[in-house]
Amino acid sequence: MTRVTVPLKMQPNEFLQTAMEAARLGGDVLMRYFRDGVAMRNKIERSGKTYDLVSDADVESEDRIAAFLRQRYPDHELLGEESLSAGRADAEHLWVIDPLDGTNNFAHRLPHFAVSIAYYFQGQPIAGVVLNPATDDWFTSTRGGGAFHNSRPVSVSDASSLGQSMIGCGFYYDRGAMMRSTLDAIGEFFEHEIHGIRRVGTAAIDLCYVGCGHFDGFFEYSLAPWDFAAGRLFVEEAGGTITDSAGSPLPLSKSCLVASNGRIHPAMIEITAKHRVSH
Amino acid sequence: MTRVTVPLKMQPNEFLQTAMEAARLGGDVLMRYFRDGVAMRNKIERSGKTYDLVSDADVESEDRIAAFLRQRYPDHELLGEESLSAGRADAEHLWVIDPLDGTNNFAHRLPHFAVSIAYYFQGQPIAGVVLNPATDDWFTSTRGGGAFHNSRPVSVSDASSLGQSMIGCGFYYDRGAMMRSTLDAIGEFFEHEIHGIRRVGTAAIDLCYVGCGHFDGFFEYSLAPWDFAAGRLFVEEAGGTITDSAGSPLPLSKSCLVASNGRIHPAMIEITAKHRVSH
Repeated sequence: MTRVTVPLKMQPNEFLQTAMEAARLGGDVLMRYFRDGVAMRNKIERSGKTYDLVSDADVESEDRIAAFLRQRYPDHELLGEESLSAGRADAEHLWVIDPLDGTNNFAHRLPHFAVSIAYYFQGQPIAGVVLNPATDDWFTSTRGGGAFHNSRPVSVSDASSLGQSMIGCGFYYDRGAMMRSTLDAIGEFFEHEIHGIRRVGTAAIDLCYVGCGHFDGFFEYSLAPWDFAAGRLFVEEAGGTITDSAGSPLPLSKSCLVASNGRIHPAMIEITAKHRVSH
Repeated sequence: MTRVTVPLKMQPNEFLQTAMEAARLGGDVLMRYFRDGVAMRNKIERSGKTYDLVSDADVESEDRIAAFLRQRYPDHELLGEESLSAGRADAEHLWVIDPLDGTNNFAHRLPHFAVSIAYYFQGQPIAGVVLNPATDDWFTSTRGGGAFHNSRPVSVSDASSLGQSMIGCGFYYDRGAMMRSTLDAIGEFFEHEIHGIRRVGTAAIDLCYVGCGHFDGFFEYSLAPWDFAAGRLFVEEAGGTITDSAGSPLPLSKSCLVASNGRIHPAMIEITAKHRVSH
């Protein structure tokens, strides 16, 4: 693992503070659109897909966050969903931004979506925030400093088997092999008599739910780095484990993903690796 | 349809007021347990199943609600999940009570659960309330009086095809044929390029989400009357349609269930009827 050379005891709070200020700015943009009613447009205009909704709110939130971060740290790189994809994932100082995770919920006016912002130094997550601006839920973490939900420290669950577990999942927009793999994996989880499956539609918050112990595990067969950059640190700082669906370390690039309390990780990987499809 | 002979213009508010007072009492019980941390026990003690969690909160909430309603209306029948199952579903005056819908979420400390209370007269729903006490979200409806979320009138979505739809679903505790049917139906919904599937874990609120237009449709292959007694009226008063999974009128007994904005109902029934299993 890369050695982090900044004075960690001192620095994380500065970066967390910045991430939270940026998230507040982005969240305010989202809530203005959410309250007023959103002029939605489909990403069909860009990518030819009809089911991938996006809104002006998404773009304006990212612009606001990016402008704020560029002013504070002109030398840092930015990596994000909308217009920032050029950011180098191997940059020394990198901010990974999802200005609106849970776009589909947002489009359907479900108050369950998030702004996700993480600061990475030399490829390692140092600070992260996931904010649901509709409920004012803040999920924050700093490397070595723990994970917090609305300023209260949290930790993963102590479930030791799938039979005690609530499992969250996500479906990539793909409706072919990856959808089928996800349904097959869910079926197999049920055969292990899990307590239940949840599909809430905002990966960044799903990961925080693992950190808070609401979910004992979570998996999704394709996630972009901005979806999990902050939630990943939250899971780790809450005592959990996060890997790709084969159990290998998570890259800061598009990946399948399994997060858990650690105890049930091998049992989850056994199922998710079996049904895995290549990207 | 049974003719309702009480003066509807006058009466519903009295029954809605009573339902809301009772829901507040039950919700307060739930929140006391939720905040303090709940001493959970499995229904395994009763039914031999390990995945059906229940808590003392559930029982105490129902006791509180039942005592309140019995004092106010000594002649009315009560039908509920925990101890009230003896209530006659064909009683002239009937209160249908779920003191804690979303038990599994509650057990995993997810703030997404509900108290559901409905008043039926001669077999017809007259007033209903679904309360999430963790977020203080009130979903209320009266026959002929509309559906309201936190006092604001709501209506179903205007999606006209599955390709524009967000579909909620539920999984019965059964992990055999019914689980498989549910997964098969989800797979077929995805083949129709729906926007997404959601599994949030509280049927009473899922139905209210249909009424609010967040979900364009919802289905579950087995629900008890207390799960849907209030949500059913909410959907209807919001302009939606609710039937069993074959499109037939919903009985006030255990049933499969499809709710929608009406426009996509035939397309939903085509899928849910195909994958239906008998109870």
